[in-house]
Amino acid sequence: MEETGALLRAIGQRKTGLASKDFLLTWEQTREELEQVLDIAQVMKIMREKNIDTRIFNSGLGISVFRDNSTRTRFSYASALNLLGLTQQDLDEGKSQIAHGETVRETANMISFCADAIGIRDDMYLGAGNAYMREVGAALDEGFSQGVLPQRPALVNLQCDIDHPTQSMADLAWLKEHFGGLDQLKGKKIAMTWAYSPSYGKPLSVPQGIIGLMSRFGMEVTLAHPEGYDLIPDVLEVAQRNAKASGGSFRQVSTMEEAFRDADIVYPKSWAPWQVMQQRTMLLRNQDTAGLKALEQHCLQQNARHQQWHCTEEMMKLTRDGSALYMHCLPADITDVSCEAGEVAASVFERYRIATYKEASWKPWIIASMILARKFADPAAVLTRRLQEAQPRIKC
Amino acid sequence: MEETGALLRAIGQRKTGLASKDFLLTWEQTREELEQVLDIAQVMKIMREKNIDTRIFNSGLGISVFRDNSTRTRFSYASALNLLGLTQQDLDEGKSQIAHGETVRETANMISFCADAIGIRDDMYLGAGNAYMREVGAALDEGFSQGVLPQRPALVNLQCDIDHPTQSMADLAWLKEHFGGLDQLKGKKIAMTWAYSPSYGKPLSVPQGIIGLMSRFGMEVTLAHPEGYDLIPDVLEVAQRNAKASGGSFRQVSTMEEAFRDADIVYPKSWAPWQVMQQRTMLLRNQDTAGLKALEQHCLQQNARHQQWHCTEEMMKLTRDGSALYMHCLPADITDVSCEAGEVAASVFERYRIATYKEASWKPWIIASMILARKFADPAAVLTRRLQEAQPRIKC
Amino acid sequence: MEETGALLRAIGQRKTGLASKDFLLTWEQTREELEQVLDIAQVMKIMREKNIDTRIFNSGLGISVFRDNSTRTRFSYASALNLLGLTQQDLDEGKSQIAHGETVRETANMISFCADAIGIRDDMYLGAGNAYMREVGAALDEGFSQGVLPQRPALVNLQCDIDHPTQSMADLAWLKEHFGGLDQLKGKKIAMTWAYSPSYGKPLSVPQGIIGLMSRFGMEVTLAHPEGYDLIPDVLEVAQRNAKASGGSFRQVSTMEEAFRDADIVYPKSWAPWQVMQQRTMLLRNQDTAGLKALEQHCLQQNARHQQWHCTEEMMKLTRDGSALYMHCLPADITDVSCEAGEVAASVFERYRIATYKEASWKPWIIASMILARKFADPAAVLTRRLQEAQPRIKC
Repeated sequence: MEETGALLRAIGQRKTGLASKDFLLTWEQTREELEQVLDIAQVMKIMREKNIDTRIFNSGLGISVFRDNSTRTRFSYASALNLLGLTQQDLDEGKSQIAHGETVRETANMISFCADAIGIRDDMYLGAGNAYMREVGAALDEGFSQGVLPQRPALVNLQCDIDHPTQSMADLAWLKEHFGGLDQLKGKKIAMTWAYSPSYGKPLSVPQGIIGLMSRFGMEVTLAHPEGYDLIPDVLEVAQRNAKASGGSFRQVSTMEEAFRDADIVYPKSWAPWQVMQQRTMLLRNQDTAGLKALEQHCLQQNARHQQWHCTEEMMKLTRDGSALYMHCLPADITDVSCEAGEVAASVFERYRIATYKEASWKPWIIASMILARKFADPAAVLTRRLQEAQPRIKC
Repeated sequence: MEETGALLRAIGQRKTGLASKDFLLTWEQTREELEQVLDIAQVMKIMREKNIDTRIFNSGLGISVFRDNSTRTRFSYASALNLLGLTQQDLDEGKSQIAHGETVRETANMISFCADAIGIRDDMYLGAGNAYMREVGAALDEGFSQGVLPQRPALVNLQCDIDHPTQSMADLAWLKEHFGGLDQLKGKKIAMTWAYSPSYGKPLSVPQGIIGLMSRFGMEVTLAHPEGYDLIPDVLEVAQRNAKASGGSFRQVSTMEEAFRDADIVYPKSWAPWQVMQQRTMLLRNQDTAGLKALEQHCLQQNARHQQWHCTEEMMKLTRDGSALYMHCLPADITDVSCEAGEVAASVFERYRIATYKEASWKPWIIASMILARKFADPAAVLTRRLQEAQPRIKC
Repeated sequence: MEETGALLRAIGQRKTGLASKDFLLTWEQTREELEQVLDIAQVMKIMREKNIDTRIFNSGLGISVFRDNSTRTRFSYASALNLLGLTQQDLDEGKSQIAHGETVRETANMISFCADAIGIRDDMYLGAGNAYMREVGAALDEGFSQGVLPQRPALVNLQCDIDHPTQSMADLAWLKEHFGGLDQLKGKKIAMTWAYSPSYGKPLSVPQGIIGLMSRFGMEVTLAHPEGYDLIPDVLEVAQRNAKASGGSFRQVSTMEEAFRDADIVYPKSWAPWQVMQQRTMLLRNQDTAGLKALEQHCLQQNARHQQWHCTEEMMKLTRDGSALYMHCLPADITDVSCEAGEVAASVFERYRIATYKEASWKPWIIASMILARKFADPAAVLTRRLQEAQPRIKC
């Protein structure tokens, strides 16, 4: 257990404020706090590999609120709760009375009497998803301070309109594993680029999450997209500021080729322009189906002009030694596999397929770590006791 | 643990029949049995506050059947199961083959091979919800006696056409907490009154549950509603009989003002007239959509004539010292918040908002208590052993 | 515990390959392997009856994928997971992003990072259901060998286009219980016959599962159906081969009467002809709603010509001593109960109703056993330790 010993010492020595703030945007956490989350995730992953029971809770609920479809995050959140000993309870807004005019603060309390964690996905409405999470958080604070709730549940952002912190932190954990440490990331070139997809309306949270997080670790971050496919301006400023502070860089270029040149890591992925997402939010709010159809038509036509934004073998040859690490949050639009023309060529994707699975495999651990760090002021002590007891997960 | 000591002694000394009858209507339980449920709930609540594991079961399922929407009760039931160590399994009649002509008694057995509890909400059909529960209960009795089921699951009424015992018992637990004991309720005036709502078709189970239960404890119960908004006549008789036996009173008045005058507690809430619910049940059965629309129109027009049934600041001034306790099962129709004109003025609701959350917070404990009392002949012994072992819920 | 002692010795002495192959078709398992599953199921059932905790896992997920409606199997699978200590997580393909072009092998890995079991029902598409399960299995093998998955989840067929092994094995466990041992089944006559139903499109997996399994144990298996209501030809060959090897027999006859004559066991049940299922699969694939309606009309008319395939009292009198054991996977189409004319007369069904419940009650144990046998090379050792520890399931 030397492996865990060093990690636990690092976890124990850090002074972080994780126990008193929700994980809603990575750039609200200090670098120490981000490292804390990575280390806790790693300890728990090792524990499970060694068949050591990772549960901290004997009972307790973990609530999920999915306001958009999800497979990966849904299963990762369910896994994280299970690793901690919590039981998932989904708030299905269709089945509930929420549509009947219930206020957010009331619902937040009603579902939390026995809840130790709440995870929310709300990425459809620009300007609203992250705000909704903060509203829930404030309601939980009030409920706890007024004696309604016996505990303050940890609140985790499972993807909002601005950031996708469980994804970007899992991506970071994967980069740390792949390159052999966070210090190895310093100076590495990462290309976050738009890529063509035959669909439209994909959220901005992944590219924004990536440039907002990778710029914290001294990486050379390049963002590339066709003209007009802008991200939220505030997040660009965040990335700029982060890069400066961490000794890295952040720049924008206008072709995939330019971004890929000498890159150590490439992350080609489709998204809808910020301006389109704003229009779409308004149309969704007004339930303007005709307007949404017209917007989709317009956007698909616009997308079609950018089919050359395609992660091909030729494109990959531009990267460092022709062998940059390909990343994707999945599912990717794979040319000739899931669509006629998409984000990535089949041969490129196939070469990195297992790597993208490993990238994704960090998510349960990252989410479990975020919850654990939010609930316990001294996570090293909690984990140490679990390791000392070393109850087997499987009683074989 | 002096607190729990006295409660456990009280629990242990009572002779109740709770272990052999389902909790389907509060007026089928003796006063001792009702007190038993309150005391068990309180012990479990204290245990959790002291971080003591409340689980009695290591494994086992708790089945839920929701034939109407629910947030609060759904989460309360899920919480109760989790507190006891049971895992929830929802019978989603849409996803199941129940629509294919399966009989109730067959399904009741098929879902119960490993079930220790079944909770049912069925409040849509007047004359059918409670009857359905009894049919399920009889099927479980048969399955158990015939050796099909290795255990008889506890059956809990999560709201039917007649009563809403988990709500009314949680309300009672809250009143006991608020006023400092059951004996403090003797002589207290409670006003259960109709209130205007811009919707229609709200079930009768809450007002019926309140007058049926609060009349057991020597309270002065007043029921008020506009002409024609009658409750089921049988339940009025129950309330009358209860009041007589408990040394309290039950009366009906025809204005909210009259009911509120000198009241210690007010419970203003909309419901649909009994006669309308009967019509609605027939129309629902015949899937007569046009008929249902016409009935809704008619009722909304009728409702609109009673907008003065509104729990305003002026109305509250009529109550004892102008400061009666406001209660609601939530969600309330709050004027200028969730609707233009509703059951309660925003300022009144806001003043009692946290109180209504605390009222609701008793529900998980009440449900857990009902299950525990149904499953164990000596609940005091079961709880005492859990307290002696005192396993921590959170292993921090 | 003498009962369990003999069973555990039998389990321990058998050399089986269950730990390294999924349970997808009973005829892929050796007779020893089938007996192993029965014995493990029985030990676990006894443990629970004696209030001994059956959990092997402290945490871990069990995934379910239901591509068709289900009550019984859904609850049985949930029960089995709960008995083992696993938590169910349903892959709801409607709520997930699977419709967005995700490949099977990717999804199989994404849902399995913390999964110890996966159960799949996919019985709608002839030629596709079992194939899909194998595709999932291959993806899990790849993920495990490539280090993506820390464990290889057990894969269980919860009904496919070819077989329904959890049903047929539960049926076999019931026959073993009813007749007092597997050896008692040798020479017993079982009639698997088509029966009239006012619906159409019922899967072939139950009759195919029954003739494919019961022919393993020296039984005299008779299959009867109207002309044109064929099963998949390959499965008939399997049954023929099995019967020869086990010293039993397999024959086909063309009337229910002939099949029932001197039968010890009758299993009258509707199904759609193999050829119709092929057509239906094509129409479903092409989403040809009009074609499906036309096919249904045609089939219902064809069915209507065979109403005399009805398990009546007269028909039952033909069986051995007029008292063959009636079996059904439920729900049955009961004449005058669930339909005007169906598979079985009400009086016959009522006489065997409790028996069919007991038949169904084996399913949770069979599924739990299949998972346990797939996960542990030495199931006897695992169970022995659970029995020695003898933790109470209910801490009363």
